[in-house]
Amino acid sequence: MYRKEIKVLDCSIRDGGLINNWQFSDEFVRANYRALAESGVDYMEIGYKASKTQFDPKVYGKWRFCADEDVRRIIDGITPEVKLSCMVDIGRVEDKDIVQQTESPFSMIRVACYIKDVDKAIDLCNMIMDKGYETTVNIMAVSTNLDREIDEALNDLSKTSIPTVYVVDSYGAMYCEDVTFLVKKYRDALPGKTIGIHTHNNRQLAFSNTIQAIIDGADMLDASVYGIGRGPGNCCLELLMSFLQNPKYKLRPILKLIQEEYLSLREKIEWGYIIPYMVTGVLNEHPRVAIAFRDSPERDNFVKFYDKLTTPETEEEAGSAR
Amino acid sequence: MYRKEIKVLDCSIRDGGLINNWQFSDEFVRANYRALAESGVDYMEIGYKASKTQFDPKVYGKWRFCADEDVRRIIDGITPEVKLSCMVDIGRVEDKDIVQQTESPFSMIRVACYIKDVDKAIDLCNMIMDKGYETTVNIMAVSTNLDREIDEALNDLSKTSIPTVYVVDSYGAMYCEDVTFLVKKYRDALPGKTIGIHTHNNRQLAFSNTIQAIIDGADMLDASVYGIGRGPGNCCLELLMSFLQNPKYKLRPILKLIQEEYLSLREKIEWGYIIPYMVTGVLNEHPRVAIAFRDSPERDNFVKFYDKLTTPETEEEAGSAR
Repeated sequence: MYRKEIKVLDCSIRDGGLINNWQFSDEFVRANYRALAESGVDYMEIGYKASKTQFDPKVYGKWRFCADEDVRRIIDGITPEVKLSCMVDIGRVEDKDIVQQTESPFSMIRVACYIKDVDKAIDLCNMIMDKGYETTVNIMAVSTNLDREIDEALNDLSKTSIPTVYVVDSYGAMYCEDVTFLVKKYRDALPGKTIGIHTHNNRQLAFSNTIQAIIDGADMLDASVYGIGRGPGNCCLELLMSFLQNPKYKLRPILKLIQEEYLSLREKIEWGYIIPYMVTGVLNEHPRVAIAFRDSPERDNFVKFYDKLTTPETEEEAGSAR
Repeated sequence: MYRKEIKVLDCSIRDGGLINNWQFSDEFVRANYRALAESGVDYMEIGYKASKTQFDPKVYGKWRFCADEDVRRIIDGITPEVKLSCMVDIGRVEDKDIVQQTESPFSMIRVACYIKDVDKAIDLCNMIMDKGYETTVNIMAVSTNLDREIDEALNDLSKTSIPTVYVVDSYGAMYCEDVTFLVKKYRDALPGKTIGIHTHNNRQLAFSNTIQAIIDGADMLDASVYGIGRGPGNCCLELLMSFLQNPKYKLRPILKLIQEEYLSLREKIEWGYIIPYMVTGVLNEHPRVAIAFRDSPERDNFVKFYDKLTTPETEEEAGSAR
């Protein structure tokens, strides 16, 4: 489908870093930057921006912090260029951590939040926009929210100058009909704003749900190389490149990147279609319980995992939910 | 989605056998039968029916032939039961190879054909129905046919008593809009008949396209355990079980089967999301060239494969197509 408004954002390093604490080599990140630029991708999200006082740099790699000097070294000398994005967490970034955009390698800073924090996200986005950056709000886990909550959050967002708001299928729980319902709702509530889509691949629906969002009018599309991302991962960038008709998007550089960098990485760290993540997707639950299970000796005991998540609780366990 | 007309057919052994020449152990096939019965699947397609004079039994396993005595031994003593299906090829089966249904363990015999052979398929189905079996016609590779050809084939089928006709995405090339186009076309041309859907997973769209077909009115759904099947494989049965709302369908027995039988099998034989099959899906081509490539020492040279399939032919090579 060709629609000139469509933009693609690659979140391979940012979302993939959730698997390995952002411990990617400089060479790997440079290879990503080069391939994304050649493929015509509009934005590369290279990590989270945070102060080095907030996380232990011995545990977390460079892309948990996205220091401007690290970023500049990575992209040095590579042409063509691709716009850079990073993500910030509410409460984990301060005004002093973000310089004026004219002094920064970043074009965009994105804010992901749960729906209860939308007003905090708006505040943060206002600060980001005041410094000259593009920004987006990505409302996570919206598959678990009541319609009333969503309407209220969208109403708050409609009064801002934030240009882009994302539908995020954090739990990989949505069907195409849910995507249509939400993209339509966002478009109706947010006239003049761009709608984004960020999917997870628990049930092999990340690509098809991204297509559905495009059909429904979403113009900002997240994807990652070979689907890299925590747990089941994301919409595969190579699939999206093969779908979009705009001649500026090219599949070949991404295939080359997969062949040269991602096949060997996938031998070392795990993501993709893995049954416990499929189960959390079916149940519309956070993947954390599946992540823990995959780290345990019982990692392939799918039946035990399924039973654990679907067997009615005992009186005692259920107590706190009453 | 709950619609009482919906039936699920598992084609794991039949389609998976295309990978390993149907060399599955009896224990493996029995485990499949037991799990499918427990999960409420309506049909198990256990292989192709053919005379042992047609293929070398040293090369091909039992399920290339589906001798009734082999089938009876597999299902002996297992309850509940699941209806059995097999597939036959046009020109590779004779009247004498198919006994009366009352003497056979099979309930259904399906015929897959290219569109040019639809009239031969109708003849074969008439013989199959005369002997008391259920039957279907599965029109393969329909993504490569002209509208005129499809209309003509459907017109011929509309005059028969064949109860079910399948939309088959042989090359894994279809998007949801193609599925909608074809299912609607088949329904309009074949009033009173059931429409089936058989998808391939080259681009991670097998499950979503099956959902789309259900939305559009297809009631006979093919799937396979863990997506097993030649190349990229098929729609995952476990995903379909998690989607269908009819309480008779159960996910747990399929998860158990994957855990106990398919994880280790997948270490030995290859299927799933693999870039060369993704590329043939994008190009709407038969997977045979990808299969050969995956058997070569260059199996992971995705760029070479992509270039081979997308570089314009030389004058000489193109000659025969002029």
